[in-house]
Amino acid sequence: MTYCVAACLDAGMVFLADSRTNAGVDQVSTCRKLRVFERPGERLLALMTSGNLAISQAIVALLAQRGPDDPQSIWNAATMQEAAQCVGDAVRAVHARDGQALKEQGIDFNVSLILGGQIGRAPCQLFQVYAAGNFIAASPESPYLQIGEAKYGKPIVDRVLQAHTPLDEAAKCMLISMDSTLRSNLSVGLPLDLLVYERDALRVTRFACLDEDNQYLDMIRRTWGERLRQVFAEIPNPQWTTPEAQAGDAAPALPRRHQPVRITAGPEPQGQPPAAHQVLAQGAGRRQVQ
Amino acid sequence: MTYCVAACLDAGMVFLADSRTNAGVDQVSTCRKLRVFERPGERLLALMTSGNLAISQAIVALLAQRGPDDPQSIWNAATMQEAAQCVGDAVRAVHARDGQALKEQGIDFNVSLILGGQIGRAPCQLFQVYAAGNFIAASPESPYLQIGEAKYGKPIVDRVLQAHTPLDEAAKCMLISMDSTLRSNLSVGLPLDLLVYERDALRVTRFACLDEDNQYLDMIRRTWGERLRQVFAEIPNPQWTTPEAQAGDAAPALPRRHQPVRITAGPEPQGQPPAAHQVLAQGAGRRQVQ
Repeated sequence: MTYCVAACLDAGMVFLADSRTNAGVDQVSTCRKLRVFERPGERLLALMTSGNLAISQAIVALLAQRGPDDPQSIWNAATMQEAAQCVGDAVRAVHARDGQALKEQGIDFNVSLILGGQIGRAPCQLFQVYAAGNFIAASPESPYLQIGEAKYGKPIVDRVLQAHTPLDEAAKCMLISMDSTLRSNLSVGLPLDLLVYERDALRVTRFACLDEDNQYLDMIRRTWGERLRQVFAEIPNPQWTTPEAQAGDAAPALPRRHQPVRITAGPEPQGQPPAAHQVLAQGAGRRQVQ
Repeated sequence: MTYCVAACLDAGMVFLADSRTNAGVDQVSTCRKLRVFERPGERLLALMTSGNLAISQAIVALLAQRGPDDPQSIWNAATMQEAAQCVGDAVRAVHARDGQALKEQGIDFNVSLILGGQIGRAPCQLFQVYAAGNFIAASPESPYLQIGEAKYGKPIVDRVLQAHTPLDEAAKCMLISMDSTLRSNLSVGLPLDLLVYERDALRVTRFACLDEDNQYLDMIRRTWGERLRQVFAEIPNPQWTTPEAQAGDAAPALPRRHQPVRITAGPEPQGQPPAAHQVLAQGAGRRQVQ
């Protein structure tokens, strides 16, 4: 599996990728999934891949092969849109070559890519390229894209990340998102490739490969968990009450919506009707947050 | 879709289920997914369902049909293990009846259930029943089970919930887990059925159906998001530095692991070698958390 996340922000772009690859749990290795196309002062593109490793490597190999002499080359793309088309074309070329053979083996053509960067003075752009070779772009309203094991780490990004988020704050957010994913899915693993691109730099200005020894990552992982548990402890527990109207009565006195759906033994409820149960105390929540 | 989560704790059990059901985004409705089998003083079982609604309703209908006269009835199960077998048998009976017809329509036999409760003075037990009718049990080491859209809400449960967690704290944890899921998946929706079962009560003692008007749920949803953003803001951003060894040099002076994987234009890197880039400041993290 894989988890890659990237954001296109007012100040630039942030890319984060894990580096675990596995074929079953008994075949696990490390494979870096973030690659950079850099022509300093002219273009900086970053490509992250997830899915079938042979497919994604074949796509990257094809893109690497297509040098500046090739009209289909990423090096000749005049815009990020064209660059995304180059990647999509490479995906389709690999599908044309390998798709049928994979199908015969019952293997899906499973690959997903994120391409982002800047060419010349045009704005930064970020795309997710699908296995069909088509793609979607991130936008100021939805400034980030994820591929691979995206769900565990999505809530924190949804709560924090916006187009105006500063680059290093976005990097912090992605590392926390990655931490949640690392904890929940064994097939996502260290080291992490973190690329922070400052708009208009047109070269790699900030890059780190983070492993167990990285003190910032270690701090994030310890602190976030600890503080999360503190916040959790500070939020009041639910308070329960026996509704006035219900005191002493049988539960059916409560409106149906305050009753659990009961499956009774046979056509008629057996024995005495269910006794009164407690319900959440209304107002409790409101009082407690003041 | 669905999100249901339940925990078997030292103090009893907690069950939480959403109530949205949908067939595509244009056919959305509300359907309660938590059902209670209660014979006060003798047994209390709770069943939660996810997957194909017709399949789960057929299973529940069969379980409801099998009254105390039926040896296969949940009402006659002497242990929770036997009760889980009753549910598994019902799953297999529905598969025997509908499986082939579904297959002919290209529809998977997709259903997953959580059964928990207590019979007599035996310990509480919690099971997840699969579409094959077999099941797994929760344990003190892994006290909770999820069905449906489990991933968004899993990290907080993993960080907080343990067998010794008090019931109302576990309920709070599950509501936060549900909140993350509600925000990330439109096919999970209110109202929520929350059942808190105190060990040895052998009846429903605490139950609530939480909707938009519930002040505790509203407090949880607002407070958790706000506090999360506060904690996030308090964690220091990464700090970057130009490595001594690298100052003025070209980037290749850095060990390869501190370099992004570069795809060069053609066999030889074009133009000047990549300029030095900044790396994460080691020690920064450690200093900042002191």
